[in-house]
Amino acid sequence: MDELSFLKNLFPRIKSDNSVVIGPGDDCAAVKWRDNKLQLLAVDQVVAEQHFLLETDPKLVGRKLLARNLSDIAAMGGTPLYALCTVAASKEFDTNYHNLVMDGILELADQFDVRIIGGDICGTPSGYTATLTIIGEVDENKVVTRYGISSGDKLFATGCFGNTFSTNHHLTFNPRLAEGIWLAQNSYAKAMLDVSDGILMDGARLATGSDKSLKLNTIKIPSRTEKLSIQNILTDGEDYELLFAVEANKATALIENWPFETNLAEIGSFVDKIDGSTVIDQKEQDLNKLFENFSHF
Amino acid sequence: MDELSFLKNLFPRIKSDNSVVIGPGDDCAAVKWRDNKLQLLAVDQVVAEQHFLLETDPKLVGRKLLARNLSDIAAMGGTPLYALCTVAASKEFDTNYHNLVMDGILELADQFDVRIIGGDICGTPSGYTATLTIIGEVDENKVVTRYGISSGDKLFATGCFGNTFSTNHHLTFNPRLAEGIWLAQNSYAKAMLDVSDGILMDGARLATGSDKSLKLNTIKIPSRTEKLSIQNILTDGEDYELLFAVEANKATALIENWPFETNLAEIGSFVDKIDGSTVIDQKEQDLNKLFENFSHF
Repeated sequence: MDELSFLKNLFPRIKSDNSVVIGPGDDCAAVKWRDNKLQLLAVDQVVAEQHFLLETDPKLVGRKLLARNLSDIAAMGGTPLYALCTVAASKEFDTNYHNLVMDGILELADQFDVRIIGGDICGTPSGYTATLTIIGEVDENKVVTRYGISSGDKLFATGCFGNTFSTNHHLTFNPRLAEGIWLAQNSYAKAMLDVSDGILMDGARLATGSDKSLKLNTIKIPSRTEKLSIQNILTDGEDYELLFAVEANKATALIENWPFETNLAEIGSFVDKIDGSTVIDQKEQDLNKLFENFSHF
Repeated sequence: MDELSFLKNLFPRIKSDNSVVIGPGDDCAAVKWRDNKLQLLAVDQVVAEQHFLLETDPKLVGRKLLARNLSDIAAMGGTPLYALCTVAASKEFDTNYHNLVMDGILELADQFDVRIIGGDICGTPSGYTATLTIIGEVDENKVVTRYGISSGDKLFATGCFGNTFSTNHHLTFNPRLAEGIWLAQNSYAKAMLDVSDGILMDGARLATGSDKSLKLNTIKIPSRTEKLSIQNILTDGEDYELLFAVEANKATALIENWPFETNLAEIGSFVDKIDGSTVIDQKEQDLNKLFENFSHF
């Protein structure tokens, strides 16, 4: 299945109306909610042997499912409110397993005041797929999309990158909700997304969304563990950090005012579109070409 | 996996707040929306070899996925607005298959002015699971839940029942949205659900939800095809018809004013709880016991 051609075929066929403020293609959709609020909606999945292993602690499976969705709300500067979840599982997965998955969801839901309002559970001939739909809200005039980047804008990232699998980061990460809300409310983040596919791919998404190229200062990107190659840092994925564009004249204020313990790093800048290159490094090497097998462009 | 014990364990652990007007356990959840409207939310799934066959026309797979969810909106008296969908599929299911599933979803979505606002597609080692989250709205003072039935209330049903598989009804049914809205707006339906598990199981749900028993006039239940046994009519399931309680003194007016071509039948009445029996027939036989293997109680 070719996801890119599937989506390219799908998106033009989807009708919209003026109640849909942000449609498919961003971290969340947004529809008119009440007063000056937008409602944010997103859905994500976890599949056995794809997003977790059969021997993974089922509590962490549930935790990851909700955390991935919270990360999407964070990327819009929003606050999560409600969730609905589904499970389709074969008989290998018993009631105890399902209870533990729910423990993991409910524990994180309590931490962020998310209310579980619905769901569905059914059988499958084999395997395990769980989905979660997250509903949140954001001020209409503070929502942050993936678009609207100008040449000269700086690229910032929270946290550190790479080696997310063997460190279990992909199961235990903290969604950057407080950071996302602060960046949106204080109008520092001009465009933002959460890094699920690695900085290379998600940085390219930010750049192409605004028809720019991205010059990465790769030596400034914090590494999760020692001795990681730049390829791992850029392409391992599942970092669930915030990656965002900041106007150059706000960069110093952002660094000075950053109120969180979470690491904050300026790791690049956006430039006018370079023909044939989306992401280059400080030596002007085309990173998408350098790590071709890891790039979807 | 024991679904009932899973849900019994789960529901008490789910926290709520006063923005959640209807929580898990009804056809849809409802949260405060705007003005005097509630937002309705539900999620449902289709799984290969469970809800459809590998040789089923993929357009009908997509159609069924949305139609099941529309039926849940209908059961609350609501109007559908938005949907998000996910697919988790193995490599056997190619891009063409996914395009056809989306054709089926989009065609029905257009018919009911539903906007697709988001989704996710990912791989699985085997099988196919698709989910759809539906968002709708309903007047706060017109929403119909599954609860609030009094002894003496009559049971009505739209359409006809049984033999839903070989007739392809489970793939091609028309969700009863217009009927549900009319029943809610005119305050005829006091409690309502859509029949997915058959009249016996879903009728029992209505009765037990209000601590009543249900006396079914089984000979009045319209059969989808000739020569169907009462067991098939009551337990085949996937009828996706509306099953609802009406105050006895409104029953005649309902029948006289019913503006639809869709069949409408009075098929029973609710009585004070009979110890040990939830659904009985006109001969006072306990139908849950008679069709024990088909009942989840």
